[in-house]
Amino acid sequence: MIVDDVKLSIAGSVGEQMYSYVAEMFPICRSITGNGVRETLKILQGLVPLEIHEVPSGTKVFDWEIPKEWNIRDAYIKNSSGEKIIDFANCNLHVLNYSVPIHAKLSLQELKSHLFYLPEKPDWIPYRTSYYKEDWGFCISYNQFLSLKDEVYEVFIDSTLAPGHLTYGEYFIPGETSEEVLISAHVCHPSLANDNLSGIIVSAFLARHLQEKKPRYSYRFLFGPGTIGAIAWLALNDSRADKIKHGVIMSLLGDTANFTYKKSRQGAAEIDRVVEFVLKSTNPENKLVDFEPYGYDERQFCSPGFNLAVGCLSRAIYAQFPEYHTSADNLSFIKPECLDESLRVSIEIMETLDDNKKFTNLSPKCEPQLGKRGLFNLKGGDNNSKQFQMALLWVLNLSDGKHSILDIAIRSNMQFKYIKEAAEQLMRCHLLEEVKQY
Amino acid sequence: MIVDDVKLSIAGSVGEQMYSYVAEMFPICRSITGNGVRETLKILQGLVPLEIHEVPSGTKVFDWEIPKEWNIRDAYIKNSSGEKIIDFANCNLHVLNYSVPIHAKLSLQELKSHLFYLPEKPDWIPYRTSYYKEDWGFCISYNQFLSLKDEVYEVFIDSTLAPGHLTYGEYFIPGETSEEVLISAHVCHPSLANDNLSGIIVSAFLARHLQEKKPRYSYRFLFGPGTIGAIAWLALNDSRADKIKHGVIMSLLGDTANFTYKKSRQGAAEIDRVVEFVLKSTNPENKLVDFEPYGYDERQFCSPGFNLAVGCLSRAIYAQFPEYHTSADNLSFIKPECLDESLRVSIEIMETLDDNKKFTNLSPKCEPQLGKRGLFNLKGGDNNSKQFQMALLWVLNLSDGKHSILDIAIRSNMQFKYIKEAAEQLMRCHLLEEVKQY
Amino acid sequence: MIVDDVKLSIAGSVGEQMYSYVAEMFPICRSITGNGVRETLKILQGLVPLEIHEVPSGTKVFDWEIPKEWNIRDAYIKNSSGEKIIDFANCNLHVLNYSVPIHAKLSLQELKSHLFYLPEKPDWIPYRTSYYKEDWGFCISYNQFLSLKDEVYEVFIDSTLAPGHLTYGEYFIPGETSEEVLISAHVCHPSLANDNLSGIIVSAFLARHLQEKKPRYSYRFLFGPGTIGAIAWLALNDSRADKIKHGVIMSLLGDTANFTYKKSRQGAAEIDRVVEFVLKSTNPENKLVDFEPYGYDERQFCSPGFNLAVGCLSRAIYAQFPEYHTSADNLSFIKPECLDESLRVSIEIMETLDDNKKFTNLSPKCEPQLGKRGLFNLKGGDNNSKQFQMALLWVLNLSDGKHSILDIAIRSNMQFKYIKEAAEQLMRCHLLEEVKQY
Repeated sequence: MIVDDVKLSIAGSVGEQMYSYVAEMFPICRSITGNGVRETLKILQGLVPLEIHEVPSGTKVFDWEIPKEWNIRDAYIKNSSGEKIIDFANCNLHVLNYSVPIHAKLSLQELKSHLFYLPEKPDWIPYRTSYYKEDWGFCISYNQFLSLKDEVYEVFIDSTLAPGHLTYGEYFIPGETSEEVLISAHVCHPSLANDNLSGIIVSAFLARHLQEKKPRYSYRFLFGPGTIGAIAWLALNDSRADKIKHGVIMSLLGDTANFTYKKSRQGAAEIDRVVEFVLKSTNPENKLVDFEPYGYDERQFCSPGFNLAVGCLSRAIYAQFPEYHTSADNLSFIKPECLDESLRVSIEIMETLDDNKKFTNLSPKCEPQLGKRGLFNLKGGDNNSKQFQMALLWVLNLSDGKHSILDIAIRSNMQFKYIKEAAEQLMRCHLLEEVKQY
Repeated sequence: MIVDDVKLSIAGSVGEQMYSYVAEMFPICRSITGNGVRETLKILQGLVPLEIHEVPSGTKVFDWEIPKEWNIRDAYIKNSSGEKIIDFANCNLHVLNYSVPIHAKLSLQELKSHLFYLPEKPDWIPYRTSYYKEDWGFCISYNQFLSLKDEVYEVFIDSTLAPGHLTYGEYFIPGETSEEVLISAHVCHPSLANDNLSGIIVSAFLARHLQEKKPRYSYRFLFGPGTIGAIAWLALNDSRADKIKHGVIMSLLGDTANFTYKKSRQGAAEIDRVVEFVLKSTNPENKLVDFEPYGYDERQFCSPGFNLAVGCLSRAIYAQFPEYHTSADNLSFIKPECLDESLRVSIEIMETLDDNKKFTNLSPKCEPQLGKRGLFNLKGGDNNSKQFQMALLWVLNLSDGKHSILDIAIRSNMQFKYIKEAAEQLMRCHLLEEVKQY
Repeated sequence: MIVDDVKLSIAGSVGEQMYSYVAEMFPICRSITGNGVRETLKILQGLVPLEIHEVPSGTKVFDWEIPKEWNIRDAYIKNSSGEKIIDFANCNLHVLNYSVPIHAKLSLQELKSHLFYLPEKPDWIPYRTSYYKEDWGFCISYNQFLSLKDEVYEVFIDSTLAPGHLTYGEYFIPGETSEEVLISAHVCHPSLANDNLSGIIVSAFLARHLQEKKPRYSYRFLFGPGTIGAIAWLALNDSRADKIKHGVIMSLLGDTANFTYKKSRQGAAEIDRVVEFVLKSTNPENKLVDFEPYGYDERQFCSPGFNLAVGCLSRAIYAQFPEYHTSADNLSFIKPECLDESLRVSIEIMETLDDNKKFTNLSPKCEPQLGKRGLFNLKGGDNNSKQFQMALLWVLNLSDGKHSILDIAIRSNMQFKYIKEAAEQLMRCHLLEEVKQY
């Protein structure tokens, strides 16, 4: 189904197609501003018609200010023999993200306070940033650190930190109603595959899927830097943010863990109930966790001044797996089949949400006579038709304008698709009327 | 107690008396219309002064129409030797209920599409109906079916399906208030003992019991055909259906299973809480099940346009015991002692409901001095009087006009009768006033 | 900390100091009226500036009337040899409390109906009263009872029962707001150490502690006789009783059992939630029990006409330990270290309640930038500062004017003191504003 919906010229399964895109974007050195974000969004424009927004440095966004733009061309550490022992060209994690430019000779002692490493994972390079305090540094493996001799080192970072812009991409799919579903993925991490690229690519493929439907809701996709990007968008769209009725932050969707959904601050919003229903019907091992004000951009959308119904869908949980924010979150950490499954689940969530309508029974006093409309099984016997008749009775009984398809599916312990199909048949017989909620 | 209340000329325990009535009504061929219902109601009139209603065929009742009246005199299948191999006179289940008349000779092949049987229970005759699609048929045991030879058969059904009436009986016991409790039993099944006759006879004996009391509520007893009878009653009484504040559908009350109560659609209505309390104090094994829009006439009373607080009391659960809708639901499937116990429990439910009043403490600031009114144990010591003093304190503390006797019994974990007795004593001392809720 | 707060001239730990006061008050023969109460309150005035109230006999207080005042000087039983075999001077429990005067010679047979004893605890003297029915009697051990010979006894009770007053003490500590916290202990039991004196002394020391703070709430301490004292206070203060927003009855606080808190009638009032939180963080074995209209003076404050949020803090539970209301509830039944712990827990409860404010986030749209205010850990790493940052984020996210510090501590599963400290730091940065609830 997915394969049919997503018409791409490149070959392979959908999971493999997504994986190829991730591989293409992996080497780019992204940050919260700069050309890495622009290149990434350009690649995504090959999939969906993103509109690119540039917000000037210095713009006030609530309590924050858009920082200077950072760009980097090269960086290395040479030992006293002139050998490059650390090279940005090999791995962009080597540079403390947002490092100011430097070209200097330092003793090992002087250098040490600018080095970051992970003694507990001696082969991995950590990912570190210093966005709001001007600094420079190198991230290296602990084994590299141990091999450093007491000599003089040449450090070079060819970066610029100067007035420029913060860049984000936005894609809006208008629906029958102006009520919006927000899908957002952060695009500020350099060569990290699961944290960042998996969420980006699943969101982009989900957008491709939805644009070919005629959805009930309007869908807004955001691809921007974490924290400051969400803050910028909310500040620039403050007056219309309440159009967002439901939302999901997408991240960490390429690994092999079961799914985790972090509920919105509201906790029992429609999106929370829909995702719980879909995840639990998919695999009882999938996990729901309560909102906490730490994590990804749900923090901003769920701040008390907005309190939007926005949760976060992931597989592994941020900061709770060893590869998190290290060079081990690389292309071998994610799997095409996991990306594919994440896309399928995301589509099911959005379709369930979109289909989750409420109805009014137009013949609410006693049961209507289903037999004369051909809706009642006259032969009887097979289990499917019995199930379907129960679905009809449940929909008629609970369609008092207050219960949605999901409410009825949960109450009756029946599949969502049966309840939806029953409602559609009753609509055709003029026994139901949709409650327009907007 | 019951024996004293029910003054019948026939001998035996109350359970045996009820069983005798069931035995008398068992052979009658009932259906949703016709003389079988009339004969049954006539027998019940020997117990309670039922008012008989006749609703003409063709009358519109909500989405339905009263069907033609069906009556049957005789039916058989003869083999080519002229032997009656299937005879309605032996068992009225043999005829597909509502069969149109036929007199014809058919090959075995032609006959087969009109035969119903149960391969999984080869000795039992199934009960089948075709009310809303004109058809004819015979219900036989699977062993009878297997013994049929490839010969020519004479089939004869001497029935009529013609404009007439739908018949139901109604008995109203006026109470102190015009608020009503509905008790309803279906009377449309032919020779089935548990499904139909047990509910009918327990309802009739309950009516006899209540008519000698001066109940607080008014009680309305209905004896009509399932589904179309309830729909007809609701259509004819649409404007005053909201007088029904509580209700119980009575069925399947003669078998040996523990009790099952299916809650009303409201789920936590007063009747639901009362029945739960009585059933659980009687036997913790008694079962409560949630409402579902399938079962007996609670389906109609709980349709969203009425949403009345009507549940269903039974022992076995409809469609969940093997004898259901077969010739095995016969006089040996039900027991006099089970009918008796069902009557006792029904009476306790109705008395608990009737006694479940709310009060206002007329001395609500601090405890009133019970000692000067002789209500406080001056000697102390025996456990009963300690319990009773606790009951007094609970009633005083919770009588704020919001808590009923049942609420107080549940909150205090004390017996209903203690709380009721405490309230009565406090009434006598002018420390309480009943809250009139109507 | 407690030691510093409580500046007493006498030596020893706070627990030992409290124990000394209990020992001083133990021999006094208290009752619901009379000089025993006055002497007790005079001793307490050495600790806190109690205001003494005298309510004349005959005063109507709701459904009750202040009884005559009772005083006693001496009482004994002499055998025929003139030996005092029972002597009030040895133990004031020997006299049925509120005994009318008598001086007579009686046979053993006549005497017996005036003797109270405990066959199940043959060495203990029971504590009995007859406040509202004029009577006289002696309470003796069962062994004493068994040793009585069939001779003539001289009984002598030198008491007076005459118009006088009911006496209670009151101490009011004004706070920032006129909303009050009530702390009440009964003072009507004679030589009983745990039931009465432990609650009195912990309350008095708690008052000493609070008077040196500048509490947010006003605190009202009551020391009066059980039942009739609370009823008198409520009757005399009827119009301003609703100033009491929270309250705790203090009793049975010197024994070695874990704490028990009996919730207010409201059941989930702020005081109930605060005490639950403090007790459960202190020791998971501490117990919460639901309100019942039996026990101490919470019965009056929680009568439906007041329904104040008043619970009861104790260690052992009234009427549920063998020493209850016997001579075994003596100075060796209570321990200085238990009194000390009870005081510490009471202080923590009151401080938690006093600190349990609500706030409004003044930068509610998106997270404010903590880094530029020095609130965000720039080095990272140590667990305490991570915890504190989480506390900051939780306070910001939930400070919507509806969540208190306690709500946030429970929701975040963090310590109250962390959340409180986070709120204070955010106040200093002008990111929060306190919600004034009065």
